[in-house]
Amino acid sequence: MHTKVITVRTGGRATVHDITSEAAAFVDGQGDGLLHVFVPHATAGVAIIETGAGSDDDLLTALDAVLPADDRWRHRHGARGHGRDHVVPAFVAPYASLPVVDGRVALGTWQSICLVDTNGDNPTREVRFSFLPG
Amino acid sequence: MHTKVITVRTGGRATVHDITSEAAAFVDGQGDGLLHVFVPHATAGVAIIETGAGSDDDLLTALDAVLPADDRWRHRHGARGHGRDHVVPAFVAPYASLPVVDGRVALGTWQSICLVDTNGDNPTREVRFSFLPG
Amino acid sequence: MHTKVITVRTGGRATVHDITSEAAAFVDGQGDGLLHVFVPHATAGVAIIETGAGSDDDLLTALDAVLPADDRWRHRHGARGHGRDHVVPAFVAPYASLPVVDGRVALGTWQSICLVDTNGDNPTREVRFSFLPG
Repeated sequence: MHTKVITVRTGGRATVHDITSEAAAFVDGQGDGLLHVFVPHATAGVAIIETGAGSDDDLLTALDAVLPADDRWRHRHGARGHGRDHVVPAFVAPYASLPVVDGRVALGTWQSICLVDTNGDNPTREVRFSFLPG
Repeated sequence: MHTKVITVRTGGRATVHDITSEAAAFVDGQGDGLLHVFVPHATAGVAIIETGAGSDDDLLTALDAVLPADDRWRHRHGARGHGRDHVVPAFVAPYASLPVVDGRVALGTWQSICLVDTNGDNPTREVRFSFLPG
Repeated sequence: MHTKVITVRTGGRATVHDITSEAAAFVDGQGDGLLHVFVPHATAGVAIIETGAGSDDDLLTALDAVLPADDRWRHRHGARGHGRDHVVPAFVAPYASLPVVDGRVALGTWQSICLVDTNGDNPTREVRFSFLPG
């Protein structure tokens, strides 16, 4: 299996980080199959959304509303409200799978592959790309 | 890879559209493997739920509560609250993967494959089916 | 395709049940590829989260807030609020896919594969593991 781990700098704040170009480079020349994207972290997810028109920030706003960073969480180590970061991957899964046709990810015009990281305590993250031939 | 794009008429209102029969037809005769379902749109998702007993409408109600169609969103083109449609795919991903055993999708009795489209401005949608042999 | 259905005892209350060890045993000796986990039930999901530090209970708390077990749901058979159990799989999908490298699921240190079952009326559940060689 063609598989590769890249390192992404997500910085010290909650962020939605576009990794579409890295994914495109990974499948370039691979023919038809499935691209699998996986984040081996317990406080991050992968989302397929539009970026650059506000929706990346809108997603963080929605996560703040759905999973507030307050004292309700049993998981309590780290910064206040950090427990909610551990629930994020149940809603925004740490994997995504996407069709690849002739070496290109068959995304729609407005779709990007994004690493969603609400946890500012981890400034770098790993992402594993894998290609399953069809 | 066996892959095919179908067009689905979702109409002018938010809808949960059952595509199970189209998926079944796609994998018929394919043996064992993985069915991948992908929606190449930035304001739609794929959900595996029961249909016909109210849960399809319940899902739309839940999305209205979790992602209200109001003025909170930065993404502001189109109808009021449309920005929330762009967050939907982060929670209801635009892909699904399902086991296929002997040419049949191995769904449970009450499971259906559904296109979730909260955006009434796009009356037709594309769905890509792909089959990965196991 | 290497595929197998296991039975999991989830008991009579909402629960997050760790199935990581069963998944590890399933892929042991399989080389590189993709592990697919699928729950053939309309009121359960699969989440990749940390267990044992409170986040499993935090996920159930979050689901209670996002999808309250009250009378708002159209799907009304069974116990009060049961309709919300049928919406859970739209947010916590009934499948997950994970990279396998050299016969081991390439999970991060704090990640576990969990069956999420908010429906106490079904004390046992099935889970299908499938392995796609890469």
